[in-house]
Amino acid sequence: MPSDAFDRDVDQHREEYLDALKEYCRLPCITGQGIGVRESAEATAAILRGIGCRDVQLLETDGAPVVYGRIGQGSPTLLIYNHYDVQPPEPLDAWDSDPFGSDERDGKIYARGISDNRGDVMARTQAIASYRRVHGELPLTIKFVIEGEEEIGSPSLPALVEAHHDLLAADGCLWEGGALDGSDRFVISLGLKGVLHGELRVRSSRTDMHSSWATVVPSAPWRLTWALASLKSPDDRITIDGLMEHVRQPPEDERAMLERIPFDEAGMKADLQIPAFIRDLSGIDLLTKHLYEPTCTIQGLASGYSGPGLKAVLPNEAMAKIEFRLVPDLEPDLVLKLLRDHLDRRGFQDIEIVTHAKLSPAKAPADAPVVQAAINAAREKYGEDPVVYPVMAASGPMSYFSAGLGVPVVTGGGIWWSDARAHAPNENIRIDDYIMGIKWAGRFFARFGGAE
Amino acid sequence: MPSDAFDRDVDQHREEYLDALKEYCRLPCITGQGIGVRESAEATAAILRGIGCRDVQLLETDGAPVVYGRIGQGSPTLLIYNHYDVQPPEPLDAWDSDPFGSDERDGKIYARGISDNRGDVMARTQAIASYRRVHGELPLTIKFVIEGEEEIGSPSLPALVEAHHDLLAADGCLWEGGALDGSDRFVISLGLKGVLHGELRVRSSRTDMHSSWATVVPSAPWRLTWALASLKSPDDRITIDGLMEHVRQPPEDERAMLERIPFDEAGMKADLQIPAFIRDLSGIDLLTKHLYEPTCTIQGLASGYSGPGLKAVLPNEAMAKIEFRLVPDLEPDLVLKLLRDHLDRRGFQDIEIVTHAKLSPAKAPADAPVVQAAINAAREKYGEDPVVYPVMAASGPMSYFSAGLGVPVVTGGGIWWSDARAHAPNENIRIDDYIMGIKWAGRFFARFGGAE
Repeated sequence: MPSDAFDRDVDQHREEYLDALKEYCRLPCITGQGIGVRESAEATAAILRGIGCRDVQLLETDGAPVVYGRIGQGSPTLLIYNHYDVQPPEPLDAWDSDPFGSDERDGKIYARGISDNRGDVMARTQAIASYRRVHGELPLTIKFVIEGEEEIGSPSLPALVEAHHDLLAADGCLWEGGALDGSDRFVISLGLKGVLHGELRVRSSRTDMHSSWATVVPSAPWRLTWALASLKSPDDRITIDGLMEHVRQPPEDERAMLERIPFDEAGMKADLQIPAFIRDLSGIDLLTKHLYEPTCTIQGLASGYSGPGLKAVLPNEAMAKIEFRLVPDLEPDLVLKLLRDHLDRRGFQDIEIVTHAKLSPAKAPADAPVVQAAINAAREKYGEDPVVYPVMAASGPMSYFSAGLGVPVVTGGGIWWSDARAHAPNENIRIDDYIMGIKWAGRFFARFGGAE
Repeated sequence: MPSDAFDRDVDQHREEYLDALKEYCRLPCITGQGIGVRESAEATAAILRGIGCRDVQLLETDGAPVVYGRIGQGSPTLLIYNHYDVQPPEPLDAWDSDPFGSDERDGKIYARGISDNRGDVMARTQAIASYRRVHGELPLTIKFVIEGEEEIGSPSLPALVEAHHDLLAADGCLWEGGALDGSDRFVISLGLKGVLHGELRVRSSRTDMHSSWATVVPSAPWRLTWALASLKSPDDRITIDGLMEHVRQPPEDERAMLERIPFDEAGMKADLQIPAFIRDLSGIDLLTKHLYEPTCTIQGLASGYSGPGLKAVLPNEAMAKIEFRLVPDLEPDLVLKLLRDHLDRRGFQDIEIVTHAKLSPAKAPADAPVVQAAINAAREKYGEDPVVYPVMAASGPMSYFSAGLGVPVVTGGGIWWSDARAHAPNENIRIDDYIMGIKWAGRFFARFGGAE
């Protein structure tokens, strides 16, 4: 079996691969602070060149450059999306070793960004190196697109994708990375929710007033409260006119996936100290709401005086940070329009909507070849069916590729684990997971390329 | 007419009286900062002794002492309530002269506390001095109760009144002071609204969560929003079960008073930049809502993230500062009970109510002798009917006397004017108003005492 030879090659190069990973993780790249951006982009391009990529270039944007490179030949074409930037390491004193030291202990490597997502960049490129050493050329074309602004919300990505449709054209896309769950089962997901971040703001008069005038002078926090209360009912159903008509029930073929998705209800309730989940849901109903329903979340409220004791004030301004997580068919602009119409219809023309960020939902069909290749490779390498999320509850810039390029996108990697601490101090990966991740990637390339 | 001799005496002592007023206003007394409290209490006691008061003493409390003194003889007995503390003078650079310098310019005296309410303390004691010089003894007994904690919410007053029922017993009470309105008409009021200050607080889980969990994990700001929205409807009607049943319509004899109360609707709307008052009310309906309806005001909202941009958080805590202004029969404890029952009945047992302050409403009957004396004295001295507020929209510790002692309480003084700037920089009184205020006080004592 070719896979045996491939795996042996990976094992033979284990120390070399880990050294290269550690070296890459010693380069900070904190784009929001302008630290190490160009250096990390160049280092990433050098890695691509090192495994034999052609046409390696830095695609310039209004912000950090995007590293592009191509390798292999023929069809199908696989696009691989990753990022070379990392979260800021602060608070530094909460780390047990240098965040950019790549310290190895207890079978783990500790470094900022190693789990999110430099481990994936290295595992995928090293899988290509082993594959080519063992088998000659790849049985497919692979295109890398590795951006430097993921941790600040990918502001340059939409224009980049728009400008390079032909360069990025592909038959499938492998996303950033993928997890092992709490039981170390390989996790694949077929999509992400979209998101609409914004604010509702109201100003009810020129100035704050003494609260004795609350009898007759309009109140900003009351206007905001009434407007908000019209958006969602106390049983947590979104009541924006027409919105829920766009929400679909899970298709029949996805219900089987739900059965395998872990959800430690008792553990989560105990940890959060909550008596019940919303609507007292449990089991498949709970998971269905979590994955298939949109949200309308108040992220913050601010108005008037909120310090100790009292202040006899009638506040003239109030603000709510509001966020919608969006399921397929609920595009951010559709939600914005439904929200505005809903408020206007109820006399809330005084409520201003400010938009901070929009992302469309993204979802690949379960029968897309790139999805099946990921599932089959996982089954072969890990000896059991992976856990497949038809969609994740979180959001990301996946839709620029899925909807923007018309490419089915799948996540998978097996390098993140349940205590990887992405975005937190002591971020780490387990070395054995990493080696398995290289082996999965090699098998995935073979499967998607139609080899063996 | 005895009043002519009295007025001549006041005019003859004009400079001496103004000098004494200025001297008194040079003493800071900022109780919250422990500045000048004992010195001001002693100076106030000395003023009472200086006009011949008997039994002058400092009644000790847990905080600032209360200055007590008695003068005159026989019945009726008039209680005079004032305070010797003042607001802090900050911001100092917004003053055109020393806040404790008693600077005289353009017919005004500028000093922190001169309008609120040291001018009233001095005008009332100087009226007694002139009356006794002209007529011998007063035709009534006057008891002074002058506290030092009014500007910090009178925390020691309830226990003080409770402990000294006999010492403070009276047939009527003259409150702190009274205004001239924007047309320089003498203002009398028969009561104040009560108040209940508190917070609604909710905690929905042990910790904040990533906002993707808003699908199934309860949300503190939503719980608060739904609870608040159940308390008042968008047409500004309080919907707490049973509360409005305790609110009375204005009695017939008070409707005539409303006709004389000024309300510059167009000016206020233009100044506040509001298109309309609540429910588009105007005229007597507007004034009736302002004076005869309770309020339920959101003074502040706080939850989650309210800085720039976005934060993908599901907040676990939310808080609303809430205030009720209370009309007669709506006691703070009744409102607390109605609110708790209302929330519980709707499943909001998770909403905690925290109480910061309570004051009962206070109202004197229009036909009480102390009220009629104030009205008649104003008519005689100012040549026109005073503006009589059956109740003011604001609140104060009046109920400790009205309900606590069973004494009708009236406000009047004629020393505050429309640009007096109480609690603000450049606080001032007009000298001519002050002299008229002494003359009104003398006439009021004569009227209430049944002289002439």
